[in-house]
Amino acid sequence: MRLLPILFLLLFVTPISAEERGRDCLACHQKDSANRQLLASDHAGKLGCADCHGADHVAIDQGKSHVSVDVCGRCHAQQLEEHRKSRHGMGLHAGWGCTRNEKGRDKQECTFCHQQGDSQPISTVQCARFITQTSEMGQIGCNRCHMIENSCGSCHGNHLTAAKIVQDPMVCAKCHMGPDHPQWEAWQTSQHGTLFQSLGMPDAPGCQTCHMPQGTHNVSGGLTAPPSGKPYAQLKAEEQRTKMLDLCQNCHARSFAARDLLNADAVRLQTLSLVDEARRIIRDLDDRGLLDPQPRNRVEHPQRGPELVLDGAMLYEDISHIESLFFRLNKYAAAKTFKGAYHQNPDYTHWYGNAEVKLLLNDIKGEANRLRERGVPVTISQEEPQYEMALEVLQRRHTRGELSAEDYAEKKRQVLELILQ
Amino acid sequence: MRLLPILFLLLFVTPISAEERGRDCLACHQKDSANRQLLASDHAGKLGCADCHGADHVAIDQGKSHVSVDVCGRCHAQQLEEHRKSRHGMGLHAGWGCTRNEKGRDKQECTFCHQQGDSQPISTVQCARFITQTSEMGQIGCNRCHMIENSCGSCHGNHLTAAKIVQDPMVCAKCHMGPDHPQWEAWQTSQHGTLFQSLGMPDAPGCQTCHMPQGTHNVSGGLTAPPSGKPYAQLKAEEQRTKMLDLCQNCHARSFAARDLLNADAVRLQTLSLVDEARRIIRDLDDRGLLDPQPRNRVEHPQRGPELVLDGAMLYEDISHIESLFFRLNKYAAAKTFKGAYHQNPDYTHWYGNAEVKLLLNDIKGEANRLRERGVPVTISQEEPQYEMALEVLQRRHTRGELSAEDYAEKKRQVLELILQ
Amino acid sequence: MRLLPILFLLLFVTPISAEERGRDCLACHQKDSANRQLLASDHAGKLGCADCHGADHVAIDQGKSHVSVDVCGRCHAQQLEEHRKSRHGMGLHAGWGCTRNEKGRDKQECTFCHQQGDSQPISTVQCARFITQTSEMGQIGCNRCHMIENSCGSCHGNHLTAAKIVQDPMVCAKCHMGPDHPQWEAWQTSQHGTLFQSLGMPDAPGCQTCHMPQGTHNVSGGLTAPPSGKPYAQLKAEEQRTKMLDLCQNCHARSFAARDLLNADAVRLQTLSLVDEARRIIRDLDDRGLLDPQPRNRVEHPQRGPELVLDGAMLYEDISHIESLFFRLNKYAAAKTFKGAYHQNPDYTHWYGNAEVKLLLNDIKGEANRLRERGVPVTISQEEPQYEMALEVLQRRHTRGELSAEDYAEKKRQVLELILQ
Repeated sequence: MRLLPILFLLLFVTPISAEERGRDCLACHQKDSANRQLLASDHAGKLGCADCHGADHVAIDQGKSHVSVDVCGRCHAQQLEEHRKSRHGMGLHAGWGCTRNEKGRDKQECTFCHQQGDSQPISTVQCARFITQTSEMGQIGCNRCHMIENSCGSCHGNHLTAAKIVQDPMVCAKCHMGPDHPQWEAWQTSQHGTLFQSLGMPDAPGCQTCHMPQGTHNVSGGLTAPPSGKPYAQLKAEEQRTKMLDLCQNCHARSFAARDLLNADAVRLQTLSLVDEARRIIRDLDDRGLLDPQPRNRVEHPQRGPELVLDGAMLYEDISHIESLFFRLNKYAAAKTFKGAYHQNPDYTHWYGNAEVKLLLNDIKGEANRLRERGVPVTISQEEPQYEMALEVLQRRHTRGELSAEDYAEKKRQVLELILQ
Repeated sequence: MRLLPILFLLLFVTPISAEERGRDCLACHQKDSANRQLLASDHAGKLGCADCHGADHVAIDQGKSHVSVDVCGRCHAQQLEEHRKSRHGMGLHAGWGCTRNEKGRDKQECTFCHQQGDSQPISTVQCARFITQTSEMGQIGCNRCHMIENSCGSCHGNHLTAAKIVQDPMVCAKCHMGPDHPQWEAWQTSQHGTLFQSLGMPDAPGCQTCHMPQGTHNVSGGLTAPPSGKPYAQLKAEEQRTKMLDLCQNCHARSFAARDLLNADAVRLQTLSLVDEARRIIRDLDDRGLLDPQPRNRVEHPQRGPELVLDGAMLYEDISHIESLFFRLNKYAAAKTFKGAYHQNPDYTHWYGNAEVKLLLNDIKGEANRLRERGVPVTISQEEPQYEMALEVLQRRHTRGELSAEDYAEKKRQVLELILQ
Repeated sequence: MRLLPILFLLLFVTPISAEERGRDCLACHQKDSANRQLLASDHAGKLGCADCHGADHVAIDQGKSHVSVDVCGRCHAQQLEEHRKSRHGMGLHAGWGCTRNEKGRDKQECTFCHQQGDSQPISTVQCARFITQTSEMGQIGCNRCHMIENSCGSCHGNHLTAAKIVQDPMVCAKCHMGPDHPQWEAWQTSQHGTLFQSLGMPDAPGCQTCHMPQGTHNVSGGLTAPPSGKPYAQLKAEEQRTKMLDLCQNCHARSFAARDLLNADAVRLQTLSLVDEARRIIRDLDDRGLLDPQPRNRVEHPQRGPELVLDGAMLYEDISHIESLFFRLNKYAAAKTFKGAYHQNPDYTHWYGNAEVKLLLNDIKGEANRLRERGVPVTISQEEPQYEMALEVLQRRHTRGELSAEDYAEKKRQVLELILQ
């Protein structure tokens, strides 16, 4: 029994064996940045190249030998467990879809979802926006962030171990930025961010202070608004809020922080209600066949077919102009409004967010007017189809759950009465 | 008489009394960030919690006991006086309107405008955009910046006194950024800003170098373009320019700096003339009843009623698409053009500013064409109303001062002649 | 013969003569930042004011005595030669056009293109966007970046010589930022940029690491996508790629870096193909006379006259709404997509780039539909002009090289057959 730890030491820890195992690599890679960084890291003398990369040089050279989180998890088991419980480890395979049958796909992508030699995918969640991209855009534009699920190097760098890197909010900025979720930008110019940049820790919080307390790798603690857009159940939401306030209290009166986050909650709901207003306008146009082009006359949605999609699976391509405006309102401006609010940033909340949501709502209403006027000549000239459309719209709204059985029956009765007049 | 200063010392300065007065608070707040920061600050041993926050713990806990600029002014009288003379202290209550009668308002906002126990507001200036927001958006999106009028902590941090914080341009970035006035972004990537970030002071200027010379808290010295959009009188403008050039001269030949600022003046006027071109197009559409929807058919402006508003009180919500384009042109792109120019930033002046102004002007002209064509069928089919409209448009332009009495009479005569033909 | 170097020393290098020559200036400029910086620089005691600025104080004061690259080249010949071979020194006079005959131009601009006393311009390349600007916008918005061709001070600062300035990516940010080429922003939040900001050199690369290896002033080594939009010949492109990979290899496996850049190449081509799709839609509308307004009814292009211009000489002013959308797609969003990809930035590649290209393509298609529908009543009511237009469109496409002689003949035959039916 006492031999086991010794064997372990021989296998993983003793400098000699590491050098031995790395010997073949170093013949060529001695001067590489990878080797230089490894030797300057906490892994120096403990790990050799093959320990993480394996020994199949052909595979490595073709990029087919990805160092997965499991490789790091061999030694860093707790961190891997926390990572897997968080959005970094769970929800982010939302970025993946099986692309086996997509034209022009590169098979080397397989290992992102499948363990080698196992056809069972780690995840079945698919992202319509990923599926519609070219392989190269998918790799640069999607995978480079979403690969965090299976790559510790996303944050830590591939051969570095300096804590400085992962304690710097810049490491988060790589992905948590841009039109759809500018968390870094919102933090950077908030009271928290500006103080952090003047004074540094511990006088002001960086990303890690609030989202990775005590160095946990579960980055999702304290978040009450899940990425799906659907709220947590009341109990879960309260638990999460309590976790966050426990952190706020390190610097602020709990009552002050609670008020602030409640304000952000309200801003989130108010914003989602504006998003819903815009969504209803477009859905109604679709119900009446007034979109230009109509969903049935364009490239099909890869998952839903010839249907209007305005939820999380919405695409930004092959849609009509009014949907294009909605995409910007929902995915960009609304997200900025409430992410800005939760990060205490007035300009993201108000100008990049709220003002843009409302400006785009004007634009959507104007375009909806145009589409309705454009549609009128068709329906006015043939009186009966108008009633048929009214009945169809009512039925669709009932099917979507927007009209109760009673309301549907009553409204249907009214329309039929008009026809029989 | 000699007792007074001694009493003052006993009350405010001696370490013992401060601790005594803070004793009740520290029982709970000893480990708070606020206390930690206070003890590390220049106020340590001089001020206790109750000196600034008062002793009404219930009020403090409910956020009703805001530490106003008057509290700080007890010791920092000169800074308060300078602050009040500047835009930070004067014009910024533009961000406030009395919200007493707005639905769902929180009464705790009152102390931002009213001294406690005094119904007379400090200011009567109102901001239409603030009034139309929800209470929560107003607090996060508006007040967090505009509260600077009554909060030294906006810049200094609430319990910190480190000069480092307020000498860092990041402290200004919190508010002076974003689509409507990206002063920080424009400075950051200007010759001044990039050198500052490489070399730091005194080789390159930060915000404070030019806008707070010798540490003055009057941040408005040297500004020739007031926020109202209306220019200063000639004499005042010259005085202000002289102040700025005196500062420029610390680094630059005065003639060089003067030329540079004159160029920016010209860019500002050229840009405002493009804004006016766009404004005239939309006003003319409104005169002819061609906006969609027309002001009388939508939510009223809270201050002006069912009227087209294209000036500083313009809203970004419940307006037509063409006004939405104008808002972006005027409030965002035009502001970037000349603020970019005054901060010597080529990309903000040209691409974020000038190019966007002109692109939006194309869009406005295109939409105006569409609205005119849309309106034509109505007026062409009934010949006389066209003349009536022409007469009404002339009258409105005369009322707005765009047509002199003579020109109005002459043009009216021409239209009447056409009718009588 | 041996006297020459000594004369040179006397003239340029000995401290005494420098002070002597600067004496007249220092009487007034002793306390100037310029003098302070000069004395702290490597030029201290070696160069006096007049050595660079000349002795004509009137000209200097009027800004007519620009310190050209030739002045610096007297001592820094190799750097000047490298600079002139690069885009900084060659292609950037694209920013200039002879403005002699433009109304309101300031003659002091002449020396940017002409050596003093020489009417032959250094360059004849002209930029339509520059020509259409006011003199002041041209100076602030265009020249402040494009003057790099003739100004070492653009990067080095005018009187500073600290290497720190020009090794900092911020020095590049001044120009390489913004909606049209956000290289700095893309780098800043890439893996490279974020590591650079945490660890600094040499653990992560800044702009200079890859674009100015060994301090070369030819910044264009390794670039395979020239600014003109037209690709390099195969051989040249391969040479350039080899140069870049030699640099990548300092840190990365060559095979990894090569794959990454090939992906970016693919993204660039895919993006340019979307740009072409949009361009064809608008060109077709123009062929059919459906643009609103048509090119012949608006301000003429300064170089091409009353013609639709959608290439590198495209203006952003006095164009129709659909062209306005195309300008944003082509000049902003497409550029972000592939510059983002080459700088390994997922958010610029995907969200600021690809998603925006595709959203704008929706908008362009929607507007094209509207313009086609708007145009239909005119052509449907007169049947024959439709055929005439079809023939004209075919001819234009043939002239542009989009239709071979055979295809043109065949399609023409088909149309004529329809007419004769």
